[in-house]
Amino acid sequence: VLYAVILAGGSGTRLWPLSRAGHPKFLHPLTGTPSTLLQATAERLDGLTTPESTMVVTGVAHAAAVARQLPDLPEDNILVEPAPRDSCAAIGLAAAVIAEREPAALMGSFASDHLVADVPAFQSVVRAAADGARAGKLMTIGITPTRAETGYGYLKCGAVASDGNPIRAVEEFAEKPDAERAEAYVRSRGYLWNASMFLWRVDVFLAELARQQPELHAGLRRIAAAWHGPRREERLGEIWPTLKKISVDYAVMEGAAAEGLVATVPGSFGWNDVGDFHTLGDVLPGDARGNVILDADDAKGNVILHDSADVVVVPRSGRLVAAVGLTDIIIVDTDDALLVCSRGRAQEVKAVVDDLRSSGSVEYL
Amino acid sequence: VLYAVILAGGSGTRLWPLSRAGHPKFLHPLTGTPSTLLQATAERLDGLTTPESTMVVTGVAHAAAVARQLPDLPEDNILVEPAPRDSCAAIGLAAAVIAEREPAALMGSFASDHLVADVPAFQSVVRAAADGARAGKLMTIGITPTRAETGYGYLKCGAVASDGNPIRAVEEFAEKPDAERAEAYVRSRGYLWNASMFLWRVDVFLAELARQQPELHAGLRRIAAAWHGPRREERLGEIWPTLKKISVDYAVMEGAAAEGLVATVPGSFGWNDVGDFHTLGDVLPGDARGNVILDADDAKGNVILHDSADVVVVPRSGRLVAAVGLTDIIIVDTDDALLVCSRGRAQEVKAVVDDLRSSGSVEYL
Repeated sequence: VLYAVILAGGSGTRLWPLSRAGHPKFLHPLTGTPSTLLQATAERLDGLTTPESTMVVTGVAHAAAVARQLPDLPEDNILVEPAPRDSCAAIGLAAAVIAEREPAALMGSFASDHLVADVPAFQSVVRAAADGARAGKLMTIGITPTRAETGYGYLKCGAVASDGNPIRAVEEFAEKPDAERAEAYVRSRGYLWNASMFLWRVDVFLAELARQQPELHAGLRRIAAAWHGPRREERLGEIWPTLKKISVDYAVMEGAAAEGLVATVPGSFGWNDVGDFHTLGDVLPGDARGNVILDADDAKGNVILHDSADVVVVPRSGRLVAAVGLTDIIIVDTDDALLVCSRGRAQEVKAVVDDLRSSGSVEYL
Repeated sequence: VLYAVILAGGSGTRLWPLSRAGHPKFLHPLTGTPSTLLQATAERLDGLTTPESTMVVTGVAHAAAVARQLPDLPEDNILVEPAPRDSCAAIGLAAAVIAEREPAALMGSFASDHLVADVPAFQSVVRAAADGARAGKLMTIGITPTRAETGYGYLKCGAVASDGNPIRAVEEFAEKPDAERAEAYVRSRGYLWNASMFLWRVDVFLAELARQQPELHAGLRRIAAAWHGPRREERLGEIWPTLKKISVDYAVMEGAAAEGLVATVPGSFGWNDVGDFHTLGDVLPGDARGNVILDADDAKGNVILHDSADVVVVPRSGRLVAAVGLTDIIIVDTDDALLVCSRGRAQEVKAVVDDLRSSGSVEYL
């Protein structure tokens, strides 16, 4: 059986004003269906795992929402971090808790706020990666690039096997490149997007964590040992604040790649990290002119698009939204804040959020 | 003394969703100051006339709002039409009521929903036109064109006098031209914009009305005769519905021009008809990048413009409005409806209103 770990953290500032600190993007139905991103993440694992073997790692502010959005999950499978300590602590906690149940279990780790268009293709890549994981590799799923994206990290891969085996060695984790380097990466066919999806045996991962981050490993093991008993909160309160804040890429994966322990299966399944409204508009189904209406409750009749193209509308206030003669514009209409943004500038929504924070307008964050 | 008549009718569909049937544009502060367009119209006549000599012609739906926005006006000076019968009946009623008080009075007629940037220049043009009116002409104030506008009618003028007299004969009222013809008009320097501002002696106007529209003239005279007595409502109820629905241009001015009775004084005082949000953005003061925020109650802090230029924002819902990377975009944010429109397409806002009407969404009209 595969233990699936869903990481439900992060706030998605580039999706403001829809995504807020109190209601981050994974809790929103940004999928083109009534499912939230979190629910869609769980749904696409159906057939690979079961609710009993699915765990969500989340923060104290969102534990209740996660529990309600995924009612089939056993309560003990919702791992609530007392405070955010970055991805290595989150993933490591899940690995250690799983190891308490089944020391050599197969574990997959998935973001809660990504979209996948082709679920069967996704599942077959996960199955192929699981083979590598069972054989003792730290597997990562690499996305075959469709453009010279500068917003993602890349995986530098070894040669394609001649025997048809889809598994390729990962030689290096490359930082977000500049435009020129991104072009070169994509042209070379030797690089994949790092989508932060991992598969491994928990014993293999924890051994590598122990080798590279011995204190973090020891702390997580002590917490996990108390997880199913009366001392969970006490141990968490004592140890969690002392844990190193570091991403799993830096803490474990880069060092493991240097040792030849990391491999990947390339995937092409319409992956999108839902980083901003622009890419969201690209991946979701639109009308004949490319307009995408992202409505939670099917109130699309309340949007009037007059001679407009490639517009993304997120109507969430219940008001009438009328667009006239627009091209490549994002409109996000919420109860207390409205965003109108050029699609090419969707990354800069973060700057508005930063402005609001620095001016003390916390009610909008 | 000059009797000033302000015509407070029309709804301004191209200013939707700000301007609504129940709250038309002249009642809104679209002036860059706290004054509404109606109030600004009255204010710019200060020095030319007095509240006792100022009359407003308006409809039943807006009489109360007009009375409150212009508290200095005597109640009898608010002429309430039982139903709209176009501009000839409105202007003719005012002329006939004034004639009851002072048969050869000087009268000026002004729209309630235009903007004038340079009030001293406006007043000096009105004074010059008043000279022509006293001499027995039907005077119209023509606006010196600043562009080949196809949205306005034009006045075909006679030669400029060699003695410095600013008054020019008006030979013809020309309909809204196509682009080519508009170019030719502006190049010729023989055409002015028809801004529907008139000055005349009421005896001269009423005589021309009697000659060209004898029934309309007779009906208006009978209503006016009863205006200051107990039979006003009875006469209005009996006669008003029978009056011909026709504009004063068609009914009187075109025929009078053919007889050599019409003249004009050209004006250049930053006139704007506030027809749509695009031209409004052109005429009102903006920031260094041409962005105009049209806020009623000085809540400009609630608009964030991030790297945007030539944006017109009308924030009227109290919500935060954030613009990112926009150019030439109009954002009108009201309690129940939001408009986002390309500035070059501002005329087409009317099409949205037509759509709403034909789909029965009357709550938004």
